Amino acid sequence: MNEVVVVSVLKADDTATFATSEAPSIQVELGGIPGDRHFGILVPSDSRQTIYPRGTMIANRRQLSIVSVEECREIAERMGVPEIKPEWLGANILVSGLDKLTALPLGMRMLFPDGTGLICEGENEPCLDPGKLIGKIYGREEIASKFVKAAYKRRGIVCSVEREGKIAKGDAVRIVKLS
Amino acid sequence: MNEVVVVSVLKADDTATFATSEAPSIQVELGGIPGDRHFGILVPSDSRQTIYPRGTMIANRRQLSIVSVEECREIAERMGVPEIKPEWLGANILVSGLDKLTALPLGMRMLFPDGTGLICEGENEPCLDPGKLIGKIYGREEIASKFVKAAYKRRGIVCSVEREGKIAKGDAVRIVKLS
Repeated sequence: MNEVVVVSVLKADDTATFATSEAPSIQVELGGIPGDRHFGILVPSDSRQTIYPRGTMIANRRQLSIVSVEECREIAERMGVPEIKPEWLGANILVSGLDKLTALPLGMRMLFPDGTGLICEGENEPCLDPGKLIGKIYGREEIASKFVKAAYKRRGIVCSVEREGKIAKGDAVRIVKLS
Repeated sequence: MNEVVVVSVLKADDTATFATSEAPSIQVELGGIPGDRHFGILVPSDSRQTIYPRGTMIANRRQLSIVSVEECREIAERMGVPEIKPEWLGANILVSGLDKLTALPLGMRMLFPDGTGLICEGENEPCLDPGKLIGKIYGREEIASKFVKAAYKRRGIVCSVEREGKIAKGDAVRIVKLS
């Protein structure tokens, strides 16, 4: 198995957009990345949690978004564009070394060198927004609608924080079961 | 499918024992049941989270323990005793109407009438303590060591709280996927 490595870390700290921007490192706490738009111990439920009335305050299991170099490349190929940047997907961590990050089972742990631990909360199902942004960036708005299909099973995972700490570019990632 | 019902709710509020005692209802918050020995947003890791050094503060995913009438009956038969009470397993909720509660997949949600939601965090693997208590109660200490094997895949699940609220005896339980 290849070594899994953090290629970049990113923050959604511009309230005007879901897009993220690169940072040298990120601090993670219970609740996610302080200052990131997805930070929160409790968050209002939305269209992804239809078992609750919209806006119900629920535990936040979608604190961080992780994507992979390998799957971003596949999405780009399928959309017919040279590149898909993690920024455009609102991702917080870009990793390399995994063929199928999106298939990582629920409950798997990702451990970082300082002991920080994340819990895989499952596949991040593609929505429309990244497609619109990608179409705009390439000046080809007709490709926007291709994103959801192109990114299906390739859009990475969402995670929550199990142990607080720091994650930085270049970190090796251990992917393990809990016990 | 049978209706799943809350038969009793219980609290571990006696610091001298892991055993629980029945209550008319329980309030659940992020972190679990206030006043219960397993309550906490962060808790120290133990032998169940060997990926962290023992005592590391981690997110608490083992907030409540749920067992079923059907599986308690099976454990009792396998141990050769008339009954296994949820108190003796340190359980917080006893349900009926499910054949195999312990097999409930990770990530399934349990919803209660007032909108309270729990997340299944997986099987609760049997440890030695309930066996000792059961042996003592029946005055047959030789059966203590039978518990772990008898309760394997029958000891119920642990849950965390997704939406805060109240759970009471007689509540109907809906078991659903998140979306």
